[in-house]
Amino acid sequence: MTARRILGIDPGLVITGFGVIEADGPALNYVASGTIRTAGPQLGELPARLKLIFDGVREVTRRYQPSCAAIEIVFVNVNPQSTLLLGQARGAAVTALVCDALPVSEYTPLQMKKAIVGHGHARKDQVQEMVRRLLRLPGLPGKDAADALGLAICHAHAGASLEVLARSGTPLARRTQGAYRGGRAL
Amino acid sequence: MTARRILGIDPGLVITGFGVIEADGPALNYVASGTIRTAGPQLGELPARLKLIFDGVREVTRRYQPSCAAIEIVFVNVNPQSTLLLGQARGAAVTALVCDALPVSEYTPLQMKKAIVGHGHARKDQVQEMVRRLLRLPGLPGKDAADALGLAICHAHAGASLEVLARSGTPLARRTQGAYRGGRAL
Repeated sequence: MTARRILGIDPGLVITGFGVIEADGPALNYVASGTIRTAGPQLGELPARLKLIFDGVREVTRRYQPSCAAIEIVFVNVNPQSTLLLGQARGAAVTALVCDALPVSEYTPLQMKKAIVGHGHARKDQVQEMVRRLLRLPGLPGKDAADALGLAICHAHAGASLEVLARSGTPLARRTQGAYRGGRAL
Repeated sequence: MTARRILGIDPGLVITGFGVIEADGPALNYVASGTIRTAGPQLGELPARLKLIFDGVREVTRRYQPSCAAIEIVFVNVNPQSTLLLGQARGAAVTALVCDALPVSEYTPLQMKKAIVGHGHARKDQVQEMVRRLLRLPGLPGKDAADALGLAICHAHAGASLEVLARSGTPLARRTQGAYRGGRAL
């Protein structure tokens, strides 16, 4: 099995976290992480902010050349307006990934936390600490970057599990995790 | 005043309507309209559908070379999942517009209906009929294309009003209509 370079994306309108790792069998290596930010005095208009997210994600894929991407399935229950804004930010990020023909897998926060900490109700700081240990980082990653790195690690684990299933002759699950069953109703 | 070519977009995950008009002072001329569809047996996955919307909108702008765009401000109260999906579809469409450096204005359905029918609670068929009359079309446009053409006409009218204001010395309103005040909270 050759090393896979995985890009994790934690989408948000103000801060989009990204994390790149290399998975060589069970060995995981840190490549890069950071955030794409759209807040600021001149950046109030939504279309301009979506462009920043799109351009930022494309810049990351250009620079680090991942072979696949994992993005968080977002849920917001604060109010419909916030949900709509987060949806648009995620739309811009996903569009940037598929523009570069990257296969995109999707994971819920629960799936990511389970993969990283071992249970779905882990706190942010527990995710940061486990990401630090799994990637042997000298210090704690920021919250947004940690979530993005966590998604990339989650995808590396999912890929390994699928490979085990494939070797055992069990039919492979669909690549995309999580369900968008409501999609056709719109 | 030179003729402006305006692209109207009515975003949706399954059907995105588009309409292109030319506004030469008060004269409005139809250029093109249609829909970008993402439903179908092989198109179940969200990232692939967002790419179809992004590519479709870019194809429209490439073919018809508009100088500006108007897109609907969407509201969904069915459930958070639908809102999130619609948000992502809109995010892909807006991203496609700003990728081509088009100035994007945003209007609520109420603003569009007021501009086309004269009141904000007009039915779909009233919008279709008024769009047909205003653009002197031989037949009724489809519902999605009519909404998109309505947005383009709404923007033509808004542009004309702003020009009158500008001539009278009143400071111009912000180009982007509608408010995304909740944006910073995400």
